[in-house]
Amino acid sequence: MRKICVFIGSRANYSSLKSVIHSVHQNPNLLLQLVVGASAVLDRYGKVIDLIQRDGFSVDYSFYNMVEGENPTTMAKSTGLGIIELSMIFDNLKPDFVVIVGDRFEMMSVTLAAAYMNIRIAHTMGGEVSGTIDESIRHAITKFAHVHFPSNSDAADRIIKMGEDEEFVFNVGCPRIDLVKETLENNDSDYWNSQFENVKGVGNKPDFNKDFLLVSQHPVTTEFGSGRKQIEETLKALQQLKIPSLILWPNIDAGSDDISKGIRTFREKYNPEWMFAVRNLPTELYIHLMSKTRCLIGNSSSGIREGAFIGTPVVNIGTRQSGRNSGNNIINVDYSTDSVKSGILKQLSNGRYEQNQIYGAGDAGNQISKILEYIDPPVQKKITY
Amino acid sequence: MRKICVFIGSRANYSSLKSVIHSVHQNPNLLLQLVVGASAVLDRYGKVIDLIQRDGFSVDYSFYNMVEGENPTTMAKSTGLGIIELSMIFDNLKPDFVVIVGDRFEMMSVTLAAAYMNIRIAHTMGGEVSGTIDESIRHAITKFAHVHFPSNSDAADRIIKMGEDEEFVFNVGCPRIDLVKETLENNDSDYWNSQFENVKGVGNKPDFNKDFLLVSQHPVTTEFGSGRKQIEETLKALQQLKIPSLILWPNIDAGSDDISKGIRTFREKYNPEWMFAVRNLPTELYIHLMSKTRCLIGNSSSGIREGAFIGTPVVNIGTRQSGRNSGNNIINVDYSTDSVKSGILKQLSNGRYEQNQIYGAGDAGNQISKILEYIDPPVQKKITY
Amino acid sequence: MRKICVFIGSRANYSSLKSVIHSVHQNPNLLLQLVVGASAVLDRYGKVIDLIQRDGFSVDYSFYNMVEGENPTTMAKSTGLGIIELSMIFDNLKPDFVVIVGDRFEMMSVTLAAAYMNIRIAHTMGGEVSGTIDESIRHAITKFAHVHFPSNSDAADRIIKMGEDEEFVFNVGCPRIDLVKETLENNDSDYWNSQFENVKGVGNKPDFNKDFLLVSQHPVTTEFGSGRKQIEETLKALQQLKIPSLILWPNIDAGSDDISKGIRTFREKYNPEWMFAVRNLPTELYIHLMSKTRCLIGNSSSGIREGAFIGTPVVNIGTRQSGRNSGNNIINVDYSTDSVKSGILKQLSNGRYEQNQIYGAGDAGNQISKILEYIDPPVQKKITY
Amino acid sequence: MRKICVFIGSRANYSSLKSVIHSVHQNPNLLLQLVVGASAVLDRYGKVIDLIQRDGFSVDYSFYNMVEGENPTTMAKSTGLGIIELSMIFDNLKPDFVVIVGDRFEMMSVTLAAAYMNIRIAHTMGGEVSGTIDESIRHAITKFAHVHFPSNSDAADRIIKMGEDEEFVFNVGCPRIDLVKETLENNDSDYWNSQFENVKGVGNKPDFNKDFLLVSQHPVTTEFGSGRKQIEETLKALQQLKIPSLILWPNIDAGSDDISKGIRTFREKYNPEWMFAVRNLPTELYIHLMSKTRCLIGNSSSGIREGAFIGTPVVNIGTRQSGRNSGNNIINVDYSTDSVKSGILKQLSNGRYEQNQIYGAGDAGNQISKILEYIDPPVQKKITY
Repeated sequence: MRKICVFIGSRANYSSLKSVIHSVHQNPNLLLQLVVGASAVLDRYGKVIDLIQRDGFSVDYSFYNMVEGENPTTMAKSTGLGIIELSMIFDNLKPDFVVIVGDRFEMMSVTLAAAYMNIRIAHTMGGEVSGTIDESIRHAITKFAHVHFPSNSDAADRIIKMGEDEEFVFNVGCPRIDLVKETLENNDSDYWNSQFENVKGVGNKPDFNKDFLLVSQHPVTTEFGSGRKQIEETLKALQQLKIPSLILWPNIDAGSDDISKGIRTFREKYNPEWMFAVRNLPTELYIHLMSKTRCLIGNSSSGIREGAFIGTPVVNIGTRQSGRNSGNNIINVDYSTDSVKSGILKQLSNGRYEQNQIYGAGDAGNQISKILEYIDPPVQKKITY
Repeated sequence: MRKICVFIGSRANYSSLKSVIHSVHQNPNLLLQLVVGASAVLDRYGKVIDLIQRDGFSVDYSFYNMVEGENPTTMAKSTGLGIIELSMIFDNLKPDFVVIVGDRFEMMSVTLAAAYMNIRIAHTMGGEVSGTIDESIRHAITKFAHVHFPSNSDAADRIIKMGEDEEFVFNVGCPRIDLVKETLENNDSDYWNSQFENVKGVGNKPDFNKDFLLVSQHPVTTEFGSGRKQIEETLKALQQLKIPSLILWPNIDAGSDDISKGIRTFREKYNPEWMFAVRNLPTELYIHLMSKTRCLIGNSSSGIREGAFIGTPVVNIGTRQSGRNSGNNIINVDYSTDSVKSGILKQLSNGRYEQNQIYGAGDAGNQISKILEYIDPPVQKKITY
Repeated sequence: MRKICVFIGSRANYSSLKSVIHSVHQNPNLLLQLVVGASAVLDRYGKVIDLIQRDGFSVDYSFYNMVEGENPTTMAKSTGLGIIELSMIFDNLKPDFVVIVGDRFEMMSVTLAAAYMNIRIAHTMGGEVSGTIDESIRHAITKFAHVHFPSNSDAADRIIKMGEDEEFVFNVGCPRIDLVKETLENNDSDYWNSQFENVKGVGNKPDFNKDFLLVSQHPVTTEFGSGRKQIEETLKALQQLKIPSLILWPNIDAGSDDISKGIRTFREKYNPEWMFAVRNLPTELYIHLMSKTRCLIGNSSSGIREGAFIGTPVVNIGTRQSGRNSGNNIINVDYSTDSVKSGILKQLSNGRYEQNQIYGAGDAGNQISKILEYIDPPVQKKITY
Repeated sequence: MRKICVFIGSRANYSSLKSVIHSVHQNPNLLLQLVVGASAVLDRYGKVIDLIQRDGFSVDYSFYNMVEGENPTTMAKSTGLGIIELSMIFDNLKPDFVVIVGDRFEMMSVTLAAAYMNIRIAHTMGGEVSGTIDESIRHAITKFAHVHFPSNSDAADRIIKMGEDEEFVFNVGCPRIDLVKETLENNDSDYWNSQFENVKGVGNKPDFNKDFLLVSQHPVTTEFGSGRKQIEETLKALQQLKIPSLILWPNIDAGSDDISKGIRTFREKYNPEWMFAVRNLPTELYIHLMSKTRCLIGNSSSGIREGAFIGTPVVNIGTRQSGRNSGNNIINVDYSTDSVKSGILKQLSNGRYEQNQIYGAGDAGNQISKILEYIDPPVQKKITY
């Protein structure tokens, strides 16, 4: 029986790989191994590991590798520590494949430990274009990965152009869309209202059955030091509109402290009635809110990806998502207050968009699990040209 | 003044970057920073750091990161430890560019620490094709690197095809050829004879002014566990020919113990008169011997690269160099005794080859140093397609 | 000139060693080397490194080694990472002596790196008795240390009884008392009032010229998991008294999250008017407040040590300080609401105490610096019996 | 059922704890957990882990933590890496007690990881006196350990004087004597002759049924840099006597390279007929040879400990064992050729000594296992004075 080891390092990872984990777990020809680390084990990022276990999956190994500091130096150091931990874990688990997602810095720990130890790597969401260090990481992982599961055809083409063997590239769609599809099918308004009530944060909670905005803005690694200014511009635009808005705190990354400070200081200074700031949202609730919000603002990839399938109006700010394959639900703007505001106004007047399947039809998890049953790429890779 | 940090992790690294170090050091617009780690600080690999200092360069930082064991697990672990060390070193040196060479596993330490810390990376010898984990490492480094100095036109083309910006790709030739050129110009036979005398090893030393063979066979990472069998086949072929042969012990890598054991056991068993086993050779002496040997046997990249410029007859064994741009001085064979033997016999009857400049004309160091004076690639990379 | 390296890993460390740093810095026969790590480089512990630099000292090396998680596992892991960092730092600084204070877990990093690298260790505040893992750490450091600067005669006797050579044990008093003395001499009420104004926290700030309480309660490592209950008992006692109280958030340690949660939840639940919660206080302001408060409550060592010299009425809760040499200003109580409340009431009726010099006369820094000029203990220690 | 975790980091560790492992394994009330690291997993130290498994014990976790370099810096770094590995291992094994032996540098990894993680430590061979960094390490471990199993009454007294609670100090004798006793009972000369034949080394093997000497000389950590000179003096003395001698290569430690070089160079220079140099000996064969040799020379603790029980004539050189409780079979000498030679001559004329039970009667393993069944020391230690 093939041993398939899935690594989860953050809440976003889990959303992306949950349907894969589920499908591998159900598959009688595969043995699921779960390894959890990075921010997914930490209290202040909502301890995703607890969520995973509540969902009925058992975790084989978990480890702490995040060095405190949240700057470029500790990002490197945490990666080094992660490799050390994972080399011991893989020594014990001896998986046939390691499944990883995307491009966050901790993914290089998993990639290097696996590649150096002759364990084959299955990579989801490769081949995409952003505009940050994530871009370099994503493509470097592609050069180590043995099987590729890009989320859209552009990404698949790009992987093949980079010299990867077409035989091992599968455009299965984005596994996050699997969850989106499932969530959108839930129309139980009592359930959702009780979910709304559970949301905890600081400030005034919007009435989610009326008009509200969603805001999710993260630091851009290569613009380290500019995060505070960037979020302030966005907040000023929102201050002019005064529509009730749910703001998510940024994820762990070099520079997230800047964004957090920006939000905190703005709140202390203006005490804005429209603002409601939240540490984390359950993924399914976030998706539901994306289907209800008048507009999602920020630089989260969810606007482009889940947003296309859901039809959410999105104002995408700055360089973080540049180059990603996106649908017509996106309006791109720069960091200034004016641009952000005018983007939002356009989306408010447009309203919701049609469903667009550029990121798949919601069955990626199943496809991936079936492919991992039989696929047999050589451990030793070779560029195709 | 731009700070150019060069990392040396092995004897081979130093041979590859010595002319670059020299040119940067001479350049009044650049400040040289030298960092030395991995096997380059270790006694049992000839302590290259001492050689560097004897050559008149001062080392800014050196560190120990090789975890004992010489297996895939410790290869990963050493890399993790290297990142931790280098993150502190770069924090102190704050270089504008880090210059690295090639594809050995420790290079990922330098690459990740630099990339995550927003330090630009200049990569020499990228874009080449081999057939091992080195191949994946090399291309992954390309995806992180900001300036590329491939050693030949095939490699340059490959880098551009992988999606790198043509503007930052320079086919300067191989900097190791700079040293080769300098060494070949030295015709002082007294000097070389005294060098011959200094060579220390076990077994009978060949007369280097008569016929002799050179053997340099390393473990293939992805064929971990087969090294011993592989070297034994080669040794059996040599045993049939009984030509005096200088054998180099393998470099540090997962599996090098296997090769070492193979040599040691063969020696204890057969006590072969033709064998002379040497831990290390000064690079220039190695080059000189390449210009004198009847044939170089094994899987060292030097046969293909330096060999083309020198005209050395080479029998290249197995998969380690597969895909490299090579001249007509190479005969490729598989691991079997018969293939190796027949390859050697062909080369013996052919004799030396003409000089071939596919790996440059011997001025790569100067070209690189001049380009690093002005080049200004963005920290934030983006694939070209 | 002797190189004296002082390590600072927390705010408390800096308070303890500031006068030593000052004296070494002034001493023309000594060269000061400063190394800063652990929580002293972190934003969320008030970035003590910035304070050190504002005080006019330059930092030779700083490093990040705190692995996120705040549990026993990460405490161990952070120590391991600290050793790795410090081994490189000491390799570069090559100090004659390393000066460390006390007993926190990160001190074992400094101790082991120095001891293994044949660097002599000067240990301040050894020989004391507490009742936690700190006790084991403190005595283990004593067994590695070459010169001992205990803060009181009981501690000095204990060090000698443990088998240390009397010749290298000096009861110089506690260097924190040096700062206390200096601070108490400052009677400028305008200065202090402006300091009061700068204090930032959540809740209602007390009027520090009227009656107020100070609360500082930390997790007890060996009672991991009980911290929340412990702080709740204290808060309930305070809730009954309703005297304006400044509460300090706990320091970084396994279990500090529990205490923090306890405070946060209590606040959200009862919204107590008397509570004012503060992340950090400048040390001198803390000392000044100790000279003004009606009572200090909790388990901070400051109550026993600085409290004796200042004459602060203290209610000391639980086991954390058990066994420390204490003056008559201390009332020891258990964790229960009733005990804490009754202890506070006794101290309120007693009022301030006389100065007690059991922890020195305020010149420890000078004494230590003078002794480090000439002392020459053997690198190789030997127990005296 | 109590979980008893035994850590083995070297061949010497295993000899010391083998009877404990055996007794714990047999005890129906205890669950044995085995963790192997440091030099015990390395080929060039004879891969003790293989031996352990051949002896029928299964290893729960093994890890690589030795950083190459064999100097004080890497000694520190290896310890740091060891803590990181062990913190994950203990997280998984959750032992009730960790059993460790002695005083080598890697033992601090085990001690700190266990102590910080609130796991109780049982320490064998504490309380002894040597004259090196080992002395500091041994006493520091005592200050962390919860149960003490010293090997002799002097050591037990010393532990109690250091402030440890008498209730948890048990003079069980040295567990290495358990093996010695068992080995001495084996009189099968055919068996021993076949063992002699299996010994592999360089040089001329002595006839072990005739007169021969045993030599085992290790680097002294605090005399780093002097090792080569020290071994040379010894070799010169042996060169004058020309009695067939089995020399053991030194164990892994800062400075062992110096000793190795000394031996190698001496051999290359003088090609001494009397010398036979061996990497490792099976422990039982070593003990048997101790019962047959005319004299054991060097600074190994085996001379003092096993030697007392066996009655071996020993010439103990230099400071490494100074302060150990020793019988009358020991002659202490300094490093000079003359002293060493005159010491050997005295022992040759004296011959074998009577059995002396200062290090126990050979039942330590059983005693320890029985005590670990019921003993219940507090996690939180406190000095007794």
